[in-house]
Amino acid sequence: MTIHVSARANIALTKYWGKSDRALNLPAVPSLSLTLDALETETSVSFIDAVDDYIEINGAIATGRPRARVVEHLDRFRAIARSDRRLSVVSTNRFPTAAGLASSASGFAALTVAVDALFELGLNREELSSHARRASASAARSVFGGFVELPAGSAGDDSLGAREIVLTPPWELAMLIAIVSGREKATPSTEGMERTRETSPFYRAWVEAAPGFHQQALHALAARDLHALGRAMERSTFAFHASAMAADPPIVYLSPSTLSLIGAVHELREKLPPAYMTMDAGPNLILLVEAPHAERWLHALRERPEIESIVSSGIGEEARIVG
Amino acid sequence: MTIHVSARANIALTKYWGKSDRALNLPAVPSLSLTLDALETETSVSFIDAVDDYIEINGAIATGRPRARVVEHLDRFRAIARSDRRLSVVSTNRFPTAAGLASSASGFAALTVAVDALFELGLNREELSSHARRASASAARSVFGGFVELPAGSAGDDSLGAREIVLTPPWELAMLIAIVSGREKATPSTEGMERTRETSPFYRAWVEAAPGFHQQALHALAARDLHALGRAMERSTFAFHASAMAADPPIVYLSPSTLSLIGAVHELREKLPPAYMTMDAGPNLILLVEAPHAERWLHALRERPEIESIVSSGIGEEARIVG
Repeated sequence: MTIHVSARANIALTKYWGKSDRALNLPAVPSLSLTLDALETETSVSFIDAVDDYIEINGAIATGRPRARVVEHLDRFRAIARSDRRLSVVSTNRFPTAAGLASSASGFAALTVAVDALFELGLNREELSSHARRASASAARSVFGGFVELPAGSAGDDSLGAREIVLTPPWELAMLIAIVSGREKATPSTEGMERTRETSPFYRAWVEAAPGFHQQALHALAARDLHALGRAMERSTFAFHASAMAADPPIVYLSPSTLSLIGAVHELREKLPPAYMTMDAGPNLILLVEAPHAERWLHALRERPEIESIVSSGIGEEARIVG
Repeated sequence: MTIHVSARANIALTKYWGKSDRALNLPAVPSLSLTLDALETETSVSFIDAVDDYIEINGAIATGRPRARVVEHLDRFRAIARSDRRLSVVSTNRFPTAAGLASSASGFAALTVAVDALFELGLNREELSSHARRASASAARSVFGGFVELPAGSAGDDSLGAREIVLTPPWELAMLIAIVSGREKATPSTEGMERTRETSPFYRAWVEAAPGFHQQALHALAARDLHALGRAMERSTFAFHASAMAADPPIVYLSPSTLSLIGAVHELREKLPPAYMTMDAGPNLILLVEAPHAERWLHALRERPEIESIVSSGIGEEARIVG
């Protein structure tokens, strides 16, 4: 029997940066994200008769740290299922991972849902999200569709999972993900978080300020106030980047192309419908817009020399079994 | 009688950002600077029979805020001298101010020394520095030559002035000032400081951390340890920029060209003698090197497309009467 699961990546509006518990991978700050339809990962799992797990990601056999992260996740489920069976895991991203889009969120969300089904554990969504968190905090959010909140976790609280914020009727927002050219090697986010926590004089202030941005975003979401939501997102974004920039040595995720594009967006805002910016732990720039306006922004940005490729996406659904 | 004074601009190694007293222009954090020989301003003052002061800066009659700042400075001296005489002030920068180098430090240092002489007040250096501070905190440092410290000021302490840190024999350092292309209009520093103080969640942490960077720099200076001095300078620099980046709206002084140049310096460091970076409230990049190595860095950077012009400078002397 093979279980096929589809899951989607998400982009945080209020940013996750910093862990309160490294071993349990608990975030020190709350985050709010939007699951994105266009960023899909499909993962298939089955039992195999073999000494080792078989892990294939995007058509290549995984080795090193990427393989180890998957095997550790499988080990956690084997412990729950009291099983020592080996698995085949074949995961494929339907979006350009090489271009710098993180796939661990969708990948581990899909894997979590798939392995739960394969072992017939019957975990509920909250439990699935909590398990996904151990592998990747953003994966905890990708278990759900739409707007998703992952609260901050207290050290030791292994039950922490995300929750969906249901809006009825839905609020049709969209995101444009601009992959910028010039990919200097970025500091991996786990390493960046640790360096920020250990050396940035602003880390404590970041952890204290982040819940305020998060609350502003939640209120804006409830009020469907795009301007307030966008402002909270931008404040969270720049504060996160600033906390990292003050680390020793400094962590600067923004590239010359990112800064140039930020300037371009400021100018385009004068004549286009509202759009708000965020940047993750890398140089790409993501815009939050109302869905009917995505096309105009896509058109305006498409020819910018800083952009290598650009993806427009509506809101994505929760991770689910597709076969 | 006309008094001619020459003064030089300075570049802060540990950064001044934030005021503890706006009215008295007192800095909330200590700063350490190097007065630079190549950045010279010459200012001539004399009494005139006129209703208003005559203020000429770089060949043009000053108006608006630049004129008002000079007249306010003259008013403070008229109050001390119990005089209501009007003055002619003619000030000329011997370096490219249009290219983004601040001239208020050298300009107000020269003006302070000149007006003291014209009114025959006989103020000592510390008093001159304190008076210059009212017009511009960096001018308080440019009253002195070489390495200069301006302590943080407590609200109300109008006597605060800078002091020279005398090194015997001198330590022959140099700075390269790279004027980068693409001059987006920057937030003026006084406005940037106020916005940071009022809205940045990191301002308090900046004010708390800055004295530590400053002490590291002072110890490095005493030990003539360029690496330690450069590291303290870079930590102060990135923390200052990060504190501003977290303001609302964000203040980003670094331009795409600055970031590109920072990357280039990181690469050049692999094969060139040590050099350390700082950036003021604008996009220009300044390197601190040992004087014998300035030429190699100048040569390596000169052809970079991000740079519009580049100035190499040794250590400058105190503001002094030249005729």
